[in-house]
Amino acid sequence: MTARLRLAIAGVGNNISALFQGAEYYRKLTLQGVAEADFVGITRPRIGGLGVSDLDFVAAFEIHPNKVGKPFDNAVLADPNNYPILDVTLPKVDFIVDEGFTKEDSEPGSARFKAIVSRLREAKAEVLLYSLPTGLQWALDAYARASLEAGVAFVNCTPDIGARSPELLAAYEKAAVPLIGDDLASHLGTSVVHRTLLGLLSERGITLASSYQLNFGGNEDFRNLRDHGANKRDSKINALAQDGVDTSNVEIIPSAGYVPHLKDSKVAMLNLEGLGWAGTPVSLDLKLKVQDSSNAAGVIIDLVRIAAAARRARLGGFSAAATRRLKSPAGGHPKFTPEIIENSFNQLDATPVR
Amino acid sequence: MTARLRLAIAGVGNNISALFQGAEYYRKLTLQGVAEADFVGITRPRIGGLGVSDLDFVAAFEIHPNKVGKPFDNAVLADPNNYPILDVTLPKVDFIVDEGFTKEDSEPGSARFKAIVSRLREAKAEVLLYSLPTGLQWALDAYARASLEAGVAFVNCTPDIGARSPELLAAYEKAAVPLIGDDLASHLGTSVVHRTLLGLLSERGITLASSYQLNFGGNEDFRNLRDHGANKRDSKINALAQDGVDTSNVEIIPSAGYVPHLKDSKVAMLNLEGLGWAGTPVSLDLKLKVQDSSNAAGVIIDLVRIAAAARRARLGGFSAAATRRLKSPAGGHPKFTPEIIENSFNQLDATPVR
Amino acid sequence: MTARLRLAIAGVGNNISALFQGAEYYRKLTLQGVAEADFVGITRPRIGGLGVSDLDFVAAFEIHPNKVGKPFDNAVLADPNNYPILDVTLPKVDFIVDEGFTKEDSEPGSARFKAIVSRLREAKAEVLLYSLPTGLQWALDAYARASLEAGVAFVNCTPDIGARSPELLAAYEKAAVPLIGDDLASHLGTSVVHRTLLGLLSERGITLASSYQLNFGGNEDFRNLRDHGANKRDSKINALAQDGVDTSNVEIIPSAGYVPHLKDSKVAMLNLEGLGWAGTPVSLDLKLKVQDSSNAAGVIIDLVRIAAAARRARLGGFSAAATRRLKSPAGGHPKFTPEIIENSFNQLDATPVR
Amino acid sequence: MTARLRLAIAGVGNNISALFQGAEYYRKLTLQGVAEADFVGITRPRIGGLGVSDLDFVAAFEIHPNKVGKPFDNAVLADPNNYPILDVTLPKVDFIVDEGFTKEDSEPGSARFKAIVSRLREAKAEVLLYSLPTGLQWALDAYARASLEAGVAFVNCTPDIGARSPELLAAYEKAAVPLIGDDLASHLGTSVVHRTLLGLLSERGITLASSYQLNFGGNEDFRNLRDHGANKRDSKINALAQDGVDTSNVEIIPSAGYVPHLKDSKVAMLNLEGLGWAGTPVSLDLKLKVQDSSNAAGVIIDLVRIAAAARRARLGGFSAAATRRLKSPAGGHPKFTPEIIENSFNQLDATPVR
Repeated sequence: MTARLRLAIAGVGNNISALFQGAEYYRKLTLQGVAEADFVGITRPRIGGLGVSDLDFVAAFEIHPNKVGKPFDNAVLADPNNYPILDVTLPKVDFIVDEGFTKEDSEPGSARFKAIVSRLREAKAEVLLYSLPTGLQWALDAYARASLEAGVAFVNCTPDIGARSPELLAAYEKAAVPLIGDDLASHLGTSVVHRTLLGLLSERGITLASSYQLNFGGNEDFRNLRDHGANKRDSKINALAQDGVDTSNVEIIPSAGYVPHLKDSKVAMLNLEGLGWAGTPVSLDLKLKVQDSSNAAGVIIDLVRIAAAARRARLGGFSAAATRRLKSPAGGHPKFTPEIIENSFNQLDATPVR
Repeated sequence: MTARLRLAIAGVGNNISALFQGAEYYRKLTLQGVAEADFVGITRPRIGGLGVSDLDFVAAFEIHPNKVGKPFDNAVLADPNNYPILDVTLPKVDFIVDEGFTKEDSEPGSARFKAIVSRLREAKAEVLLYSLPTGLQWALDAYARASLEAGVAFVNCTPDIGARSPELLAAYEKAAVPLIGDDLASHLGTSVVHRTLLGLLSERGITLASSYQLNFGGNEDFRNLRDHGANKRDSKINALAQDGVDTSNVEIIPSAGYVPHLKDSKVAMLNLEGLGWAGTPVSLDLKLKVQDSSNAAGVIIDLVRIAAAARRARLGGFSAAATRRLKSPAGGHPKFTPEIIENSFNQLDATPVR
Repeated sequence: MTARLRLAIAGVGNNISALFQGAEYYRKLTLQGVAEADFVGITRPRIGGLGVSDLDFVAAFEIHPNKVGKPFDNAVLADPNNYPILDVTLPKVDFIVDEGFTKEDSEPGSARFKAIVSRLREAKAEVLLYSLPTGLQWALDAYARASLEAGVAFVNCTPDIGARSPELLAAYEKAAVPLIGDDLASHLGTSVVHRTLLGLLSERGITLASSYQLNFGGNEDFRNLRDHGANKRDSKINALAQDGVDTSNVEIIPSAGYVPHLKDSKVAMLNLEGLGWAGTPVSLDLKLKVQDSSNAAGVIIDLVRIAAAARRARLGGFSAAATRRLKSPAGGHPKFTPEIIENSFNQLDATPVR
Repeated sequence: MTARLRLAIAGVGNNISALFQGAEYYRKLTLQGVAEADFVGITRPRIGGLGVSDLDFVAAFEIHPNKVGKPFDNAVLADPNNYPILDVTLPKVDFIVDEGFTKEDSEPGSARFKAIVSRLREAKAEVLLYSLPTGLQWALDAYARASLEAGVAFVNCTPDIGARSPELLAAYEKAAVPLIGDDLASHLGTSVVHRTLLGLLSERGITLASSYQLNFGGNEDFRNLRDHGANKRDSKINALAQDGVDTSNVEIIPSAGYVPHLKDSKVAMLNLEGLGWAGTPVSLDLKLKVQDSSNAAGVIIDLVRIAAAARRARLGGFSAAATRRLKSPAGGHPKFTPEIIENSFNQLDATPVR
């Protein structure tokens, strides 16, 4: 039997609540006799022999006072986390959440750095999942270096630069430690829906007259986005443009609003106005509602299993298997063909169990 | 310069109104100095050297009393046709609409048959566009045989069996006359949008819980569909299934209603409910509004040019170039690769102008 | 303390499942310490001293084989009923569902008639709730006469003619037995939303250009409506017109489709296109989703309490208190002023408890 | 015949473009033989004998370089104005737009003040329409005082304080000059639709669980609102609350985004989630699209006619007839009954023509 995945966490937000509760959701399904192949919302029941419930949370780093110093199973549900409470019995996971890096003590030589490296080693973590708010490049750098020093695979969920850094990637490769990133592609995000529809219009010869996309929600991301909307807008426009879609008449509002009662739900409104034969109009309005952190956790579950399986197989650096689960994979999007990606999965699956 | 396309019509409905008016719309754009490459709603400005305005309507067959015996430019706008009147100056096209086949006189030996063949010859028609209401197989058979006898290329817009008939196809091939069909793929139809979104969910690992599609509009099709909804539902479910989408939880209402004031507009409402990570919901609602007959004319314009170019090149039978513009092309969907299709276009484009 | 309401049922469909389960839902809220005034979805916590959980089901009549001869608590959840199973513990209510009227044996002298009258008397029913499918006038007549003979108050949920019949009303008045009807006004139905928005446009001086309303759902009503759509359309157009709204450009599709996976949910799509200053457009699209039988039960709970309280107060015939809960109240809509209605409630509330 | 209304303008934005073009739109309808009673988008064809086309623009004040010093008919269409160009022939109105108040020279004694008063007198203006961006109280004060000094009726479209100022109102009353304001109620605005639906839920006994409202558009208002969103949000929440609606679960995003290609169109997305019988859900999604400045002009046309008719009748101060066209009328909303309002209109209509 494959050993369970030992997972450490940097940033105990909603995504981690979704991951922790969701793993139990699938364990419950198994107990009810549901076969893995019938699990809802799962593309790949096994990666490197690991199932979606084969997670042991073993360490966590945070700076929010509601979470630091608390047992993990407590911290993961603490305010401002507002992912729904699923109808599952959560296991007792009562290691204490450690204080994470602050900007002041994030240097490799610092006491905090040493403490975090020791904690990762002592916990026998296989993977460190980096899931802090976007925009803290110094924090990503510090965790990535600590992870490398501890020999722990690193997964970067954020758009900050991790696996895209040639230096960092080379260092991980040299040490034969996996480095997976950057920027989680949502399970079913607004960008992919919008891009798909823009592509469809273009393919069918409908001329795009105008389009807009609005996103709003009630979790901390949307509160934060109020201030950082401009960058996010550009990054989303780029996400649309990646398949050659002309975005000159497309407007994106990444955070149209923070609507607290939506909690961890996210709503996107899309409109596409096109011109068909003889300039007659084609119009398309769409409302997409998702559970924001489930959208992340459904992809994180693959990335951490890829990272653990790669580490077990002593495959350092980036793993091609992760490519389609990321918005900005190391090496960019056109690098790996579907065949290479599939081979990468097969290689991970074939690794003899430790 | 390429000679203009000489087009005969069986069934002077909204699609023909859209085609006739739309050709003038693009002519007007040209006069305003708009380059062909910038035409809205057009995928292929030239096919076999023919532009989208290079149409001469030369004969038409109908049985509706508002149209038979009337000048064509008059008949094409007559009630119950309700395609919008575009802001263009229509040319005078005053040949008289002839009486078409009725079930009684549709046999090859009949006087009507001979009259129609003569009319096609005398008009020097290159293509006969078959655009009658769905479900009149006897009429399709009669027009297809008359067209063949007159040596005129035949284009079947309807789901009735034309190019899918091996006998008919063989006869056209033998006579070196093009036979293009069957069943127009809409420029941007509900099926392709629905299928695209179902495919996207599946690809992203979101489990489909349920989905529905409702269509309604105000033209004669929707009035007719009230009675024939059941067949259409099956055909639409099949259209969804064609890429391997599981349709067990999908319900389609081809004609949810006849809403007269929508006229030739068509509205579709789509809903997809999915289950993502931990069974949390993903929900997607879409409203699509199109000009129904523009949706057809934007594809017809390609099919008739393909048919004319093939005839000029003395290429009988089905033309691979038409494949993606049809729901049920002769030989089925997987027959032609994108390369074969592109080669077919190139061959047509390369044909020396007669 | 007010004695609990003894309720008999004709037609054990989804509405009754909603009523039965919902009464327990509110009992559970009470046990959890929620005050009546804070009950969700309830306008009037007490009528005639009766709370929303003060229901005892004492007799039921049906003809569906899945229900006749079964214990009531079993029959009420039997297929094709598909109201959701609420998270409540249902009480044991195991009287046997009796066979109801069939067209053949519905005459007052018949054995079935006598059996039903005896059953109502023996069960000490106070109210008979008539909730059969629409269109069975003979059944309504039979139950109404049996109810009258048994001295039991009668509530007609359907658009068939009950309290609007002057003869029937006179007979009930003479016998001092309440007769409440006809045609339940939904708790929040499509008609009232549509009428409200049409009225708003008109009041603000926006000219209505066109409007449509589509309804679809997955319960037996929608299956039935496929066949009887035309009558329902007229009745719904009338419902809109009742406040003087011009309906010449309004189209209503009462059953745009039967979408089985929606079960007892009902979806309505509304569109209003208006013309404002200088003929510039105003457009409004709305999607309304409700639990169809909750929409009924939320009103039924008031009607049966009104009927019981009126009977206890020995007030025969129609009760003004019921007016706004009905689409076609006895005497029509303008008959009772808000003051009269409020007085009627006060009179019921003031009745000394039996 | 009633003399035409002589109108002066402070702030030549989209609203004025809508008013100027719209007046011609209705003149064209009249020429086409359409009766006033059939005008689309008009509640009151005549006020004080004045029709909706009986406007003469006679003076205008602005500070935007694209408009100052230009002929009015030119300035009214100048960028950043982006109201659609209607299909009408605009009359030549070539008086020169004057430079308006700037903060520095807005004191009563200033040269600018004297110039504006003289211009109003010399132009024989009857009404000065104040239509500057919101938030410039000093500008409103200056124009209101200049208008009073010139004996010209003043109409305030903005939420800044005009007719609500007791001092200002007293001064206008004393001088027998009309003062109409404050804050235009849109012809069909988001607030009234939202309030109507919230009220409907409440009236029907559906408990509101949550609601949101998002607004976005492409004109200067939405660009400005990006910065001033917070105040607007409070004012919109207040607008909802005015009928006693509980707004604790309601979130409003006044400017969810500036979407340039929408130009002067405005889109609102509304969602209401309710709880009905047994806590089962009711959900309502609405998209409202309007021409923003038509929404204003459709009400302005009534206010300026009220102001002119009142001035002709020598009725100073506020006119009850204006009450329902304003969000914050002088004296507040409950002041005038429908009867008083109707009488006020009748008084204006009865005034003998000067």
